[in-house]
Amino acid sequence: MKIPMKLYLIVFVCATILFVQYHIYTPYTQNAFNFERKVSCESPTTKASSDLPPLYIITPTYRRPEQLAELTRLSHTLMLVPNLIWLVIEDAYNTNNLIDDVLKRSGLNYHYMIAPMPVQYKNKTKGPKPRGVSNRNKGLEWIRDNAFKGVLYFADDDNTYDLDLFTEIRYTKTVSLFPVGLITKAGVSSPIVQNGTFRGFYDGWIGGRKFAVDMAGFAVSVQFLLSRPKASMPYKPGFEEDGFLKSLSPFEPSEAELLASNCTRILVWHTQTKKNEPSLALNYNKYNNTNLVSLKNILV
Amino acid sequence: MKIPMKLYLIVFVCATILFVQYHIYTPYTQNAFNFERKVSCESPTTKASSDLPPLYIITPTYRRPEQLAELTRLSHTLMLVPNLIWLVIEDAYNTNNLIDDVLKRSGLNYHYMIAPMPVQYKNKTKGPKPRGVSNRNKGLEWIRDNAFKGVLYFADDDNTYDLDLFTEIRYTKTVSLFPVGLITKAGVSSPIVQNGTFRGFYDGWIGGRKFAVDMAGFAVSVQFLLSRPKASMPYKPGFEEDGFLKSLSPFEPSEAELLASNCTRILVWHTQTKKNEPSLALNYNKYNNTNLVSLKNILV
Repeated sequence: MKIPMKLYLIVFVCATILFVQYHIYTPYTQNAFNFERKVSCESPTTKASSDLPPLYIITPTYRRPEQLAELTRLSHTLMLVPNLIWLVIEDAYNTNNLIDDVLKRSGLNYHYMIAPMPVQYKNKTKGPKPRGVSNRNKGLEWIRDNAFKGVLYFADDDNTYDLDLFTEIRYTKTVSLFPVGLITKAGVSSPIVQNGTFRGFYDGWIGGRKFAVDMAGFAVSVQFLLSRPKASMPYKPGFEEDGFLKSLSPFEPSEAELLASNCTRILVWHTQTKKNEPSLALNYNKYNNTNLVSLKNILV
Repeated sequence: MKIPMKLYLIVFVCATILFVQYHIYTPYTQNAFNFERKVSCESPTTKASSDLPPLYIITPTYRRPEQLAELTRLSHTLMLVPNLIWLVIEDAYNTNNLIDDVLKRSGLNYHYMIAPMPVQYKNKTKGPKPRGVSNRNKGLEWIRDNAFKGVLYFADDDNTYDLDLFTEIRYTKTVSLFPVGLITKAGVSSPIVQNGTFRGFYDGWIGGRKFAVDMAGFAVSVQFLLSRPKASMPYKPGFEEDGFLKSLSPFEPSEAELLASNCTRILVWHTQTKKNEPSLALNYNKYNNTNLVSLKNILV
């Protein structure tokens, strides 16, 4: 059969029209979940997720009545941040299916690990314990083994994070610093900045620290960490941040990148959640065969 | 020109192939913001946002050091819920630009209103004050004036909400009830359910209430509210929920819809944030011309 030239032309035109339609409209189509909300705009020209340096978020956690709630709430914030890897590390001897379920349901790219506090600290009877240190060092170890670029940030599960924080820390070249709200009686912990220059630290408690910052007040480039193979966090209550930042030596506070519009905005708050006592025992004789038995299994 | 039958057939087949391709692949394409995360699945067969009954979320708030953080954090959760109208109502005489900025940056459909506590309660010196009542009644009033379908829910800014909560309450026909975690020493407040039937309330404090529930433990259909034109919340500390639900009469606890898998899951927690004192005064002589002046303007 001889197919006429006109037929070729018509097919070509139809195909072109459909092709163009497809590629013009697709980028603006809502996705499968009808998510039409504005999500974290990472840069003025919205970049594809894969172009963004990855963010490694290290979250130490431990079993307590508020734990499921805290991780649920934090997961919502992180779900709005592209190209993020969440390292959730529990001070425990075993992982917990209830936690794993929260993480799984978030759809986030996460790694759930355990890192119990060494026994010599756990059995300490006097003074504060170095909480979260084994967890954070485990996170650093994971990054050394698995990452080669991007930025790391220590994000406790009870803090509050503005989405702009993630946009800003993502491009950290060495170490970036920024204000943290709700810290000590001062109400904020921040580098002091004058005419765009670092002048020292403002914090309710300086305590002779070289880096008088909160755990939520700095981010570190992965490449910078990798170039300091001995950097780690010390088991020294009150001096964990200072000790870790000093272990990144050679590095001076004045060399830090100052974020949050020259430290004039608060993009992270040290919110603390009121502690609840473990729940009272359930009367199983009275409530046998009711929903309360299932609920009690979830409670601490 | 006479176009042969075969040409018609070929064009038809080409068009069909492209059409099918387009409609098969489009739903799975990432949207303009490269948002590839799984967000709140509202129903097994994902519905378009506009098909979903609207959710009216009433959030009372008041000025305190943690306020900006709390609203920021809650906004992230709500950003993941489709077809939601956020009614943020402050116990204040004026609105606040800092709050409005947080709400605006969320991209949510919100209405920011004020509803100061009546003076007779504000000046009370003995016993607890009826916090949040004027705010919630203002929210109910707004709904009576502006809504005709959907569901309303009282969501305090310090609580924690699982995304599944919103999926479940959205189809409330009258009043739905569900467990709330971290309430009293019992650790949870919940309807007692046996064989799918309501048997009473479990709560650390029953206090002779007909509806022994927490403010976060129920949702109400807008149409049901509209059919009870006198329903409102009383200024009676400890009995706000009970008073409101009784004002929806005729309605009995046993008629409530039991959500959260027959009340065996915890989809909302009464998390409370540790209160901070107002921040200390800033030494303006010492810190003049530094970033601390800007930061102090944000702090309470």
